[in-house]
Amino acid sequence: MSRNDLGFDTINLGHGSGGLMTRDLLDHIIFETFNNPYLNQKHDGSIITVDGELAISTDSFVVSPIFFKGGNIGELAVNGTVNDVAMCGADPKFLSLAFVVEEGLPMEDFVKIVDSIKKAADTAGVQIITGDTKVVERGKGDKIFINTTGFGKVHPKANISSNKIKSGDKIIISGPVAQHGMAIMSQRDGLEFESTIESDTTNLNFLVKDLLDVFGAKIHLFRDPTRGGVASVLSELADDTNLGIKLQETEIPLDDQVAAACEILGLDPLFVANEGIFITVVGAEIADEVVKLMKKHEKSPRASCIGEFTSEHPKKVVMHSVIGGKRMVTPLLGEQLPRIC
Amino acid sequence: MSRNDLGFDTINLGHGSGGLMTRDLLDHIIFETFNNPYLNQKHDGSIITVDGELAISTDSFVVSPIFFKGGNIGELAVNGTVNDVAMCGADPKFLSLAFVVEEGLPMEDFVKIVDSIKKAADTAGVQIITGDTKVVERGKGDKIFINTTGFGKVHPKANISSNKIKSGDKIIISGPVAQHGMAIMSQRDGLEFESTIESDTTNLNFLVKDLLDVFGAKIHLFRDPTRGGVASVLSELADDTNLGIKLQETEIPLDDQVAAACEILGLDPLFVANEGIFITVVGAEIADEVVKLMKKHEKSPRASCIGEFTSEHPKKVVMHSVIGGKRMVTPLLGEQLPRIC
Repeated sequence: MSRNDLGFDTINLGHGSGGLMTRDLLDHIIFETFNNPYLNQKHDGSIITVDGELAISTDSFVVSPIFFKGGNIGELAVNGTVNDVAMCGADPKFLSLAFVVEEGLPMEDFVKIVDSIKKAADTAGVQIITGDTKVVERGKGDKIFINTTGFGKVHPKANISSNKIKSGDKIIISGPVAQHGMAIMSQRDGLEFESTIESDTTNLNFLVKDLLDVFGAKIHLFRDPTRGGVASVLSELADDTNLGIKLQETEIPLDDQVAAACEILGLDPLFVANEGIFITVVGAEIADEVVKLMKKHEKSPRASCIGEFTSEHPKKVVMHSVIGGKRMVTPLLGEQLPRIC
Repeated sequence: MSRNDLGFDTINLGHGSGGLMTRDLLDHIIFETFNNPYLNQKHDGSIITVDGELAISTDSFVVSPIFFKGGNIGELAVNGTVNDVAMCGADPKFLSLAFVVEEGLPMEDFVKIVDSIKKAADTAGVQIITGDTKVVERGKGDKIFINTTGFGKVHPKANISSNKIKSGDKIIISGPVAQHGMAIMSQRDGLEFESTIESDTTNLNFLVKDLLDVFGAKIHLFRDPTRGGVASVLSELADDTNLGIKLQETEIPLDDQVAAACEILGLDPLFVANEGIFITVVGAEIADEVVKLMKKHEKSPRASCIGEFTSEHPKKVVMHSVIGGKRMVTPLLGEQLPRIC
């Protein structure tokens, strides 16, 4: 039997039963695709050998639609967790992978998602070491939800903590904002609009590693502005550090097409979700060098220093606008659009 | 603001937004309940220190109904993963916790589930160190799904692998079969019947540790017969080891009430899901001692040696019945009832 010939056109409840159908699905799709010594044990779990500090992060992915311009839920589930582990100053190496599939998902879509997971995992240098597959009745889920939990050793030079942030620290963003959110919005039922905006989903772990290799503990924080966007991350940081944040609007990278789409929908791009960018907070003395290194890296050619921490207006984020004005950036209560990741 | 006064009677989409509502929910329910130094970092992930072999296991829990006799989805999500880590011969210490909540879940139910998770985690001696909360629209989920991923150091004396199983090895079960599955079935829409059958969900990690402390590498395998029941686990083991299995029907512990319920519904208890029991495969020379130790332990007073591996009928599981007959135990294609865990 090959992975394209399980005898079923769709996933059905039997595939989540723990019986022979589950075993067939695992053997011919999951184990065949991810084939590695950890997973091949086919035990209840996997065993890795670790020595030192291990960063762990978990995320469930419920994005709708599951296929979108620039990616699908599978690669999002890999990159999202890989990046969360990297944001801890760590080097992601292993992922667990758990599916909750709605009965009726075309087998072809499932295979396509599994293949994307494999490709994204290979690109990021991580292995899928243990997993789980559950199937729920039609109408009790939404095609497919994926949970990934990632693990990786903390970089020996890393010392990442919001406690280290001080007045004067610079805020650098790795690339243009609002790409992922606007890509999803442009394809969401009832909101569709013509655009070529693609999700920026990608793995950022190697860029993070390069930065830590060079700058070590002078990097105070990494954070990826996914749900809630850049504004929510910065509001939280202002709150946590008891410092203010000054932002320079002109320095925030933003694609013209994304800006136009935000304007049409009445959205502030600072609140729109991102996937393939991060914010780093660094000591002022290394900010220029950090931007220089990032601009040369394939993942961050448009890196930019967008602002700094200040003791002037504690817990407040203030945007200095193009025309010289100032406005407060307040966190949203909810979000403009749910299920963006 | 207290954890019972978030200003919302139900979970709504804003609670999964990444904005202020998410932060409120996390601060006042999640962080307040699980309060520990790992989680309190409020970073994208958590950092643990490890030295040696680490076992990792992941599971998504989609059980319906979410509250059932003897437990709820929250404690199931803790115990299930704690036990899967223990089945690797390891000592579970940390869990990640990820919710996918359907819009409209009563806040009271969410709090009740979070409290059960806390209680089960404390009982099992594990800490919730990182997590995620997503909310999906009404009709796109089913109240709540929970993913937990668990971690723990492998016991220094453990050497657990189906490769170690040989002809003559004994199969011991820690308690009566089919309790969990029949508890769920008795409360499932359209199937309800009067019974006092309770789920056997519990943590088995301390029992596993006690066995490894005493018998070490003479224990060849632990496996918990959840979905697919005892029959599916044994069929898989016969297949993997290329050995046969002889079972003694009279030795398989089964509650009268569970047996009666199975008979009414036409179910074979060997195929019904379990939560609070495990199967261990041990060298014949220690089988009696293992059963003796287990019978004294609070988690396994009804432990029993139910059969053995044999070279006589490779890959086949044969049941020797009460009246002296023999029958083949063949694995099910699907399962009798989905969403049992």
